[in-house]
Amino acid sequence: MANDDLWLKSLITDTPQEGRELAILMARKTIGAIQSDPEIKKELREEYARDSAQLIASAEVVALEFQTVAAANNYWKK
Amino acid sequence: MANDDLWLKSLITDTPQEGRELAILMARKTIGAIQSDPEIKKELREEYARDSAQLIASAEVVALEFQTVAAANNYWKK
Amino acid sequence: MANDDLWLKSLITDTPQEGRELAILMARKTIGAIQSDPEIKKELREEYARDSAQLIASAEVVALEFQTVAAANNYWKK
Amino acid sequence: MANDDLWLKSLITDTPQEGRELAILMARKTIGAIQSDPEIKKELREEYARDSAQLIASAEVVALEFQTVAAANNYWKK
Amino acid sequence: MANDDLWLKSLITDTPQEGRELAILMARKTIGAIQSDPEIKKELREEYARDSAQLIASAEVVALEFQTVAAANNYWKK
Amino acid sequence: MANDDLWLKSLITDTPQEGRELAILMARKTIGAIQSDPEIKKELREEYARDSAQLIASAEVVALEFQTVAAANNYWKK
Repeated sequence: MANDDLWLKSLITDTPQEGRELAILMARKTIGAIQSDPEIKKELREEYARDSAQLIASAEVVALEFQTVAAANNYWKK
Repeated sequence: MANDDLWLKSLITDTPQEGRELAILMARKTIGAIQSDPEIKKELREEYARDSAQLIASAEVVALEFQTVAAANNYWKK
Repeated sequence: MANDDLWLKSLITDTPQEGRELAILMARKTIGAIQSDPEIKKELREEYARDSAQLIASAEVVALEFQTVAAANNYWKK
Repeated sequence: MANDDLWLKSLITDTPQEGRELAILMARKTIGAIQSDPEIKKELREEYARDSAQLIASAEVVALEFQTVAAANNYWKK
Repeated sequence: MANDDLWLKSLITDTPQEGRELAILMARKTIGAIQSDPEIKKELREEYARDSAQLIASAEVVALEFQTVAAANNYWKK
Repeated sequence: MANDDLWLKSLITDTPQEGRELAILMARKTIGAIQSDPEIKKELREEYARDSAQLIASAEVVALEFQTVAAANNYWKK
């Protein structure tokens, strides 16, 4: 794997909100790993962003990824 | 990210019920991160709020987010 | 939030079965938070209670909520 | 709740296999809590037992319930 | 329950790969507990093994069962 | 099981990103365990890689597998 593909160096983030952003990135990177064609990805994105059922399913993936990120950060408790 | 977008400062809430509200907010913010057009979001919301299958799917997302919030708060045990 | 909306004071229950009832309540309250119109809710309820796929999806939400309630109660172990 | 409805006295079982049976019971009891009409339940059961997608969704619910039961029993480790 | 139905004696396996096999077995046994007719099961299997959406849903069930098996084995860490 | 099928020797990886790759492999291996015909698998793959709903469902499976891998690696914390 080339260096420019190294996108997940750590699960640790400074804040919960950065943890949310990481969770969204993780979900998107999985899609990109399965469907790497940028044109198809763009089409699909336009499709699912207007489909409420698919938006809810996407939110479920983010919730699952965030469970992992939050646990890794001990829920950002001091 | 602009300051007015900082919506998740902490996973800690005073009560379980506030934890539920945070879980619902987390689910909604994910939708907003994927589909940011307010008009489209409003249309989609009207659609899924009348579709029982999508309501159940939404409840699943909230349940997952709440698992994280509840663990972060040690289930609000003293 | 008005006091009569305070429905989740604690995740602690005396027994596993009361924990199940709380999990079902949690799932229902999420639906009510998204779709608050009592007429629409009633219609939707009649619909999904006769649709086996939606019943199974509802059972999944309850299973997830119960995971949280059970952990909060340390699985009701003495 | 009448005594004859008290079906979940404990999450503790003697063996993993009894834990599986409890997980299946938990899933079924949730369905029964939402749809209590025995005639409708029987019809729905015949329907979903012949629908592979619904069987898989049912298996997901059982897997989630079993996660809880297994944790409660510390995975039946001595 | 007859002895020849005793299929889950333990969640402990020697290796992660045997844990995967157990997770797949657990998913299959749940299907068999709901739909026990061998002819119908065979038909359904042929159906879902050619349906990518159902294959993905099956993989989700296996992932959930494996979470339990992996935790039971402390992730096979020495 | 023949040795050339031994694909999951350990859940431990050096980095979070290798953990992601393992999670994707785990999801794919489950599909292969259910549908082993390479021709059918290829057809199904082309199908679901162009279907946004199925891509999202695939991402959910990966998220679940990654939860297990991340926990096994103690979230790659030193």
